[in-house]
Amino acid sequence: MNNYSGRQLVGVAGFRGYSGAELIRILSRHPHVEAVLLEHRSDSEERVAPLGRKPAKEIPAKVEAIRQEGLQAVFLATPVEVSLQMAPELIEAGIRVIDLSGAFRLGDAETYSQWYRERHTAPELLQHAVYGLPEFYRDRIRGARLLANPGCYPTAANLAIRPLIDAQVADRGRGIICDAKSGVSGAGKKASLATSFCEVAGNFRAYGILDHRHVPEVLQNSGLGERELTFTAHLLPVERGILETIYLRTVRVEKAVDLLSIFEEAYGEEPFIRLYAPGKTPDLHGVLHTNFCDIGFVFDSDSQRAVIVAAIDNLGKGAAGQAVQNMNLMLGFDETAGLL
Amino acid sequence: MNNYSGRQLVGVAGFRGYSGAELIRILSRHPHVEAVLLEHRSDSEERVAPLGRKPAKEIPAKVEAIRQEGLQAVFLATPVEVSLQMAPELIEAGIRVIDLSGAFRLGDAETYSQWYRERHTAPELLQHAVYGLPEFYRDRIRGARLLANPGCYPTAANLAIRPLIDAQVADRGRGIICDAKSGVSGAGKKASLATSFCEVAGNFRAYGILDHRHVPEVLQNSGLGERELTFTAHLLPVERGILETIYLRTVRVEKAVDLLSIFEEAYGEEPFIRLYAPGKTPDLHGVLHTNFCDIGFVFDSDSQRAVIVAAIDNLGKGAAGQAVQNMNLMLGFDETAGLL
Amino acid sequence: MNNYSGRQLVGVAGFRGYSGAELIRILSRHPHVEAVLLEHRSDSEERVAPLGRKPAKEIPAKVEAIRQEGLQAVFLATPVEVSLQMAPELIEAGIRVIDLSGAFRLGDAETYSQWYRERHTAPELLQHAVYGLPEFYRDRIRGARLLANPGCYPTAANLAIRPLIDAQVADRGRGIICDAKSGVSGAGKKASLATSFCEVAGNFRAYGILDHRHVPEVLQNSGLGERELTFTAHLLPVERGILETIYLRTVRVEKAVDLLSIFEEAYGEEPFIRLYAPGKTPDLHGVLHTNFCDIGFVFDSDSQRAVIVAAIDNLGKGAAGQAVQNMNLMLGFDETAGLL
Amino acid sequence: MNNYSGRQLVGVAGFRGYSGAELIRILSRHPHVEAVLLEHRSDSEERVAPLGRKPAKEIPAKVEAIRQEGLQAVFLATPVEVSLQMAPELIEAGIRVIDLSGAFRLGDAETYSQWYRERHTAPELLQHAVYGLPEFYRDRIRGARLLANPGCYPTAANLAIRPLIDAQVADRGRGIICDAKSGVSGAGKKASLATSFCEVAGNFRAYGILDHRHVPEVLQNSGLGERELTFTAHLLPVERGILETIYLRTVRVEKAVDLLSIFEEAYGEEPFIRLYAPGKTPDLHGVLHTNFCDIGFVFDSDSQRAVIVAAIDNLGKGAAGQAVQNMNLMLGFDETAGLL
Repeated sequence: MNNYSGRQLVGVAGFRGYSGAELIRILSRHPHVEAVLLEHRSDSEERVAPLGRKPAKEIPAKVEAIRQEGLQAVFLATPVEVSLQMAPELIEAGIRVIDLSGAFRLGDAETYSQWYRERHTAPELLQHAVYGLPEFYRDRIRGARLLANPGCYPTAANLAIRPLIDAQVADRGRGIICDAKSGVSGAGKKASLATSFCEVAGNFRAYGILDHRHVPEVLQNSGLGERELTFTAHLLPVERGILETIYLRTVRVEKAVDLLSIFEEAYGEEPFIRLYAPGKTPDLHGVLHTNFCDIGFVFDSDSQRAVIVAAIDNLGKGAAGQAVQNMNLMLGFDETAGLL
Repeated sequence: MNNYSGRQLVGVAGFRGYSGAELIRILSRHPHVEAVLLEHRSDSEERVAPLGRKPAKEIPAKVEAIRQEGLQAVFLATPVEVSLQMAPELIEAGIRVIDLSGAFRLGDAETYSQWYRERHTAPELLQHAVYGLPEFYRDRIRGARLLANPGCYPTAANLAIRPLIDAQVADRGRGIICDAKSGVSGAGKKASLATSFCEVAGNFRAYGILDHRHVPEVLQNSGLGERELTFTAHLLPVERGILETIYLRTVRVEKAVDLLSIFEEAYGEEPFIRLYAPGKTPDLHGVLHTNFCDIGFVFDSDSQRAVIVAAIDNLGKGAAGQAVQNMNLMLGFDETAGLL
Repeated sequence: MNNYSGRQLVGVAGFRGYSGAELIRILSRHPHVEAVLLEHRSDSEERVAPLGRKPAKEIPAKVEAIRQEGLQAVFLATPVEVSLQMAPELIEAGIRVIDLSGAFRLGDAETYSQWYRERHTAPELLQHAVYGLPEFYRDRIRGARLLANPGCYPTAANLAIRPLIDAQVADRGRGIICDAKSGVSGAGKKASLATSFCEVAGNFRAYGILDHRHVPEVLQNSGLGERELTFTAHLLPVERGILETIYLRTVRVEKAVDLLSIFEEAYGEEPFIRLYAPGKTPDLHGVLHTNFCDIGFVFDSDSQRAVIVAAIDNLGKGAAGQAVQNMNLMLGFDETAGLL
Repeated sequence: MNNYSGRQLVGVAGFRGYSGAELIRILSRHPHVEAVLLEHRSDSEERVAPLGRKPAKEIPAKVEAIRQEGLQAVFLATPVEVSLQMAPELIEAGIRVIDLSGAFRLGDAETYSQWYRERHTAPELLQHAVYGLPEFYRDRIRGARLLANPGCYPTAANLAIRPLIDAQVADRGRGIICDAKSGVSGAGKKASLATSFCEVAGNFRAYGILDHRHVPEVLQNSGLGERELTFTAHLLPVERGILETIYLRTVRVEKAVDLLSIFEEAYGEEPFIRLYAPGKTPDLHGVLHTNFCDIGFVFDSDSQRAVIVAAIDNLGKGAAGQAVQNMNLMLGFDETAGLL
């Protein structure tokens, strides 16, 4: 069902969170869809806002209301508990779901409960969920009813590592190190001492060392074994952005340009991957407020050491941007609509 | 009672907050006293700390324990509710109290309840409380049993304005504007969305416009009437520091050096006031981690406009530093002990 | 002359600076124009950039080249010296100029040389230059050949103050105070110790007290006399954004809603002014990366004191955004094209 | 020679830089020495300072003046060129030198010229220079005439890695990765676009990948070969602090506590090394404004992977703090004087 302007309607649950608000911003510039806010009764945050600006339409975050409104798809920018409850009902009602939580990213319920420390309450949906990394699963995404939007860290890691795995030039036996750094919005909007200004500003720390729930997501999509990948997250004193520095040894790579060729073959036509000349690496500023993943590397052929740097906006390609890219594929729009 | 090293013992309640932690830091370098932590049972914050470092001694925040330990004085770096409960008991037990909350700063219970929106539960103590601004009340502070440590904003405002009021060169009728900006630690350590990193970083906003509870504290100590002072607070994206830009018209001031003379007469011997040459004004960096209040101004004799800039560290001269300065006076130490 | 896509071509000189880069970003989303980079030979900054992305077209910043390329208008996001040299040549060649420097904002050469400390080398153009504040000079802007884009501080100040001046409710005799705070990009991109990270982060300071070159720009457009306006600039530790806190006394204003009515009458139909309910004031986050000016206030009818808070993005409504708004008017496009 | 207060005099060249200013701050609290500023005629930075505060004594940065003043030692917080010129003259004149530049850290002139891209002009001094890492070279430091104060990155790296190398539990063949992040003051005070606020705030980037001049300093002191260590530097948007995340595989380590034992044996009595319980790692805040190096780790015995996190203040243990620690050893004071 369309709205009066001929644009299709899509819903956004969790629109007050950082990913949800970013979704609203992106969708407000989208040529083919219009966002409807799905309100949870428990939300009560009062926001100082200008007078007289027409806000987006709000309806209750209930299946009946959503169905009645004729929404084509619903984004769940919600905690896993809420996603686990809403997704089955929406799918049942024939409404496409793009879930930004971690609820449907892992392939089986057991791995889920191991890393998320709770039982998965909709295990039957896991096999139908499509992992939304368009660069590798574009065709499946087009037909998805339930899309699991990738985590922010795994998006950058998979995009940086997988071409080398697929081309069989990574020395997996020696291990791949992913030293990842993220801005604070990745932790969500819930107030906590750990993300308060005075604790974060002028500070920097590691967390989730050898124990981060995003690891199985990388393993599952890269084919790496648990001991082949060492992942560490760090909290940067910035609002947004992820930069990952990845260390690996290559086999059978003669020159830096050969490594570049592998990336170019994998991503030559990709609209949202930008490669850098060998020896150049991206920074956060270049990707903020975009859906790009920037990838650069330094390579030492003598020692076969490669240091790859990948940068994304954790709210862009790491969440809302990629979710809209996936929606574009699912609803048959141009993949870049609203994103360039 | 002394500890083995010959230093006197003083207690710190609320030592996990920002002012309390700053007190511990300052006292650890103090030549004559040693801090004892006063633990509230409800505290449970786990802090990652290095192994094997001797922590400060901890005892319960109870009058019996405090008396038994022989503490000479107790700092209350606690919320007003806790101060209102602990201060009467400690005073009753003959222990000096230095209260960093706002509980005892205002002269009467009615003004208190008007601004703090709750009834004052120990009104009989208000007349005995001494307002701890040493530059103006040094003698009374020496004999204080209950010391009300000034608020951070009023400290800078009073120090910047009062010499001109006392010298009768401020045109009170035209009004004095105090545009104040504070770092985030001034809001305390309690987690809230308003002080979370993502809301504060890259942001700036005014608050408490024409309605800030620090206003009556300035009026009471400067003698200004309610309509003579306009005060606005702002939240700076920095951890600590307050800078106030104060606008007033003077009467009978011929030259900038005459204005400087008034400040020099008021503060010539003061160890913690630093004056700047006319036309020069201080910044935050110069006062961070110190007990100084830096004051500079620009003066236009033609229009009799004076713009005064005062800077303090809100955790230093604005809280813990000034509290130690007051303790030094109360316990008969050199006023600057531990503070330079 | 149009490019192949039917869009008109406009040039941007100084595209490597912060305002220039913002212009490029805004114009890249503009439906009717396409930006051409005007290269100065002295520019040599090497920028790490992704491979294989089609950059904007570059031509020399020379009148012949600009004329040959058929540019409809040229943005000068350049230092005053460069603007003073290029603007006359471009005007002479019949090309519209939108100048973001301060070269043509002041009405006469004498005031210019007093504040900019150098002689104006194109005084004959000053009377033809149109001051580009669309909310007050829309009609004249439509016909402008040389547009003087307003300074960042004056934009917010004029928009906040002028409706009250025009409605004659400001007590000018008592003086208006404008306490302004700006992000660092307002100082331009030239490296200097004063804008280096270590000097700015965690810091805050006032500058230009009673002596800022933006003052005459406010006076000229508000009609205020020199002694009626006191302006102070401050450097905020943020990348972008300006917030001004303005203090004045009103005459004949009964209630806060009456003050709001004055603003609503002035700006009711304005696409880029957003008003807040009385008692609510804007913050920086709300205006970043937009062309909005947000205005809120607190009013005390008893004392007739009004505290007005205005916020803009100094690179948006304070520079590049407003420049595009002016271009839209000058070239006959919808005023909001590319800006919402 | 002593000053009137019985304290020995030491000189500081380069006192306007960040390391030099930190030296002045630390020495101002030192019980046994007093700092004299060594002025270079080319210095001209005007600093807004309070009136009437007794500044430190200043003398020309000339050997005759330094000798005449009777300085016991001179800190060179200067660029390598200045250190290369002053150090030989001072040594010749019998004055102890503590050099904070990189001029005398590397063992031979050839390695120096390879990494610092210029010829070493005082190669004969290299064999006499003592590398100032007290935890490993304490005895030699006591007798040093020319002390090469370690670089900031190598200090943290060597302290974190070397106990494991010495205990032969690091699998050197698999390579050690050091992913290092530093605050901006590490780049010095010279204004540059790369360290300007707008380029650094909200940003993060890697630099010196597989090519950082601090690498040979780590190799030389850890005994690692060039291919055994992979080092990457990153620029954090903070003023100060270094955190390094180090990845290695161990051999013959059964449990995390065994790894802790190795660190405890190496550092049990060290006053400036703080160890964390296994599984806990330090952050920057804990070491700022201190001379501590905090070390923690996470260990997975199954895969023998160890992730070690080391944190220092780059201006503390990474520069000025360690320089004072070295001075204390050289002049026979308590090693911790002025540093706790």
